[in-house]
Amino acid sequence: MASPCPLVEVPDEPVYVPLSISSPPGAHCSEHGATRFDRGDLAGRKDRQIRGNSMDRRGFVTAGMAATLAGITGTGHLAGVLDRASFWRVGKTLPDGTVRLSSNENPLGLSPSARQAVVDAIVDANRYPSAWRRPLVDALAKRLGVKTENLVMGAGSTEVLQMAVQAYQKPGIPMVIAEPTFEDVPRYQRPFSYELKAIPLVESGYGHDLERMRAAAGSGPSVVYICNPNNPTGTITSSSDVDSWIADAPEETLFLVDEAYFEYAGDPSYWTALKWIESKPNVVVVRTFSKIFAMAGMRLGYGIAHPDTAKRLTAFISANNTNVLACAAGTASMADDGLVDRSVDVNANAKQIATSTLDDLGLEYIPTHTNFIMHRINGDLQAYIRAMRDKGIQVGRPFPPMTEWNRVSFGLPEEMGRWADALREMRAVGTI
Amino acid sequence: MASPCPLVEVPDEPVYVPLSISSPPGAHCSEHGATRFDRGDLAGRKDRQIRGNSMDRRGFVTAGMAATLAGITGTGHLAGVLDRASFWRVGKTLPDGTVRLSSNENPLGLSPSARQAVVDAIVDANRYPSAWRRPLVDALAKRLGVKTENLVMGAGSTEVLQMAVQAYQKPGIPMVIAEPTFEDVPRYQRPFSYELKAIPLVESGYGHDLERMRAAAGSGPSVVYICNPNNPTGTITSSSDVDSWIADAPEETLFLVDEAYFEYAGDPSYWTALKWIESKPNVVVVRTFSKIFAMAGMRLGYGIAHPDTAKRLTAFISANNTNVLACAAGTASMADDGLVDRSVDVNANAKQIATSTLDDLGLEYIPTHTNFIMHRINGDLQAYIRAMRDKGIQVGRPFPPMTEWNRVSFGLPEEMGRWADALREMRAVGTI
Repeated sequence: MASPCPLVEVPDEPVYVPLSISSPPGAHCSEHGATRFDRGDLAGRKDRQIRGNSMDRRGFVTAGMAATLAGITGTGHLAGVLDRASFWRVGKTLPDGTVRLSSNENPLGLSPSARQAVVDAIVDANRYPSAWRRPLVDALAKRLGVKTENLVMGAGSTEVLQMAVQAYQKPGIPMVIAEPTFEDVPRYQRPFSYELKAIPLVESGYGHDLERMRAAAGSGPSVVYICNPNNPTGTITSSSDVDSWIADAPEETLFLVDEAYFEYAGDPSYWTALKWIESKPNVVVVRTFSKIFAMAGMRLGYGIAHPDTAKRLTAFISANNTNVLACAAGTASMADDGLVDRSVDVNANAKQIATSTLDDLGLEYIPTHTNFIMHRINGDLQAYIRAMRDKGIQVGRPFPPMTEWNRVSFGLPEEMGRWADALREMRAVGTI
Repeated sequence: MASPCPLVEVPDEPVYVPLSISSPPGAHCSEHGATRFDRGDLAGRKDRQIRGNSMDRRGFVTAGMAATLAGITGTGHLAGVLDRASFWRVGKTLPDGTVRLSSNENPLGLSPSARQAVVDAIVDANRYPSAWRRPLVDALAKRLGVKTENLVMGAGSTEVLQMAVQAYQKPGIPMVIAEPTFEDVPRYQRPFSYELKAIPLVESGYGHDLERMRAAAGSGPSVVYICNPNNPTGTITSSSDVDSWIADAPEETLFLVDEAYFEYAGDPSYWTALKWIESKPNVVVVRTFSKIFAMAGMRLGYGIAHPDTAKRLTAFISANNTNVLACAAGTASMADDGLVDRSVDVNANAKQIATSTLDDLGLEYIPTHTNFIMHRINGDLQAYIRAMRDKGIQVGRPFPPMTEWNRVSFGLPEEMGRWADALREMRAVGTI
């Protein structure tokens, strides 16, 4: 190994971390097992997501980010802000050194162009957002190849999920979901005391059990939530099978297809449900700026649907829901051509570290198509979460009934290194 | 008059406008009738809101803002940003020169400390907001003298109104509102097809007709919305009368008291309904950061209620609703001791210009306790709105049934000057 800590010591190469990420307390470069970054055999790769050598990928990402930063610095436009390195800090290490691998956040942080857009928009933050929403919606419609009347903006995609529950569920209209899946949807129907039918994921592969879900939905009105890829398992459900159901389903079946992690999923058996929205008013596709665009804290998501359906959802919108600065950041993020690739690449790098580590330790995991992975922990989940917390690492919450598994979100390589070190330490003392 | 355009020419005094507010197209300083700023007699003042001479007030405001800006500049902390004057621009003149006096926004823009807080928080905008919500909620509870479990945060106070409708209204549980009042509340109950009882404001004074509202609410379950001060009339309803009703009302009457404009109202007959929240779980007080804190585009508001009630409302919250940057700005705004006074003072100044102008023109208006005023237009409202738009001024939308009135929001003095000029021009050609 040329360098024990390549991320801060690789010479002659721009890097994206060193601006102000502080070393975690008690962590030293020598503790980061560089073998995890250097693996050439890629043993244990269980899916087709990772393209190319992970070192090459990382090199590409860091060079790209640095070039973007350098470009902005070069304009002198935000030179004063850049003097304060933390403004441009990448990654999600908390001030106390804790690493957040708990909430499927994108570790790159807002793109440089989005940060600049936020600063530029502050002057309008005393205004209601409509003037800033128009360019956002126009750009989004163009990007997706849909009309603006197909779009429903939300303060996060979760608000669109809430609108869908409220617009389509009623007493006697059940919600059909997988178990486990993203909890917000059942949470939104709970206070109305609507009926919920939770169908366990299929044991082989942890996809949605579409056959059982179909039987549960029946021929009467129902709301079917398909989280694809699924949170918290990271799994995809065959898009061909989803299409077949949508094609045959009665109009009274409302399909709520959550594609929050769409951009991370590259499997050939997976594609978007977007093509249905023109012909099928009973299909709503939901996406977000929280993941691939690293905007979880900005609260910006959207639904895509037939105009009649979009109108029906909008009746349940919270007025002026999307923040001016979120609109500005979203518009700028879409205009940042390299952003999706950077996010996908840094994620593939983290996934490589995660799967290699789990393979080494012989811990079963579910091949993931997202920015997180679910793996066995061979012990009590709450104790595991506490132990990780004691080591300065936040991992995912419990997702019953999968209480023998933990969900860990993907961070920067050195954050994954800390997580891997923690796992090895726990193995050494026999707790996993 | 020493100067025809005191706001940009007063020497030896720091001012808050000139950073980058561009002159409106076709507007010249000499067109701004300085007599409106210089009135010493305060003739036509119809309420007790304006304290002291408006020139003194304005001097205080400008000096305060400039001092704050100077203080920040002095640290060198954001020097680079300050080089770009638009970042610190005050006021709501749009890039095309249009003056927005349409949405009850605070013309001062985000406070300097809030702007700095936003810049500092950008680095965390890829994270979900919980870490930023904690200090916000702690500071807010302290400010209000309540416990954190009394608070429900919303993406604007409007989201809290939506929660209240959903948590308390049902088929058979009517909503009782004034007419006209803030439209979001009836809008939120409409898609559920719940019953609405709209009670006209009292003809004398345009306050809520509490007696008729009480009769409409009856003794069974109901939701009573009291917007106090009321939007769009700017009027207050006697807090003593509100208290009497709350004291006597059955527990099944849910009082939703909207105090969005609370900080602007200084009348002795007006006070908050906050004291009820401990003893009365059927009282919800709603407030916002949109108005006095100039954060309309940030989407941050809150409800204050008994902990049981707060919990019931929260069941209908949209997950992670408040933006990271909004939380940062809100926390910083509360810590800015001069902010409320600056907002109140610039508003009083605008009110003085508005009422003087309306008095001069003999146009009836409703004494206001807010940051806007409703006045007669002596003609067709849509034509009036279009004519104002043609002169580069956005005024308020129609508020039926008061279609012979227009609501105009208060802006900076020179913006009010443009509005006054436009009114005089319309009078000259006989359209008002």
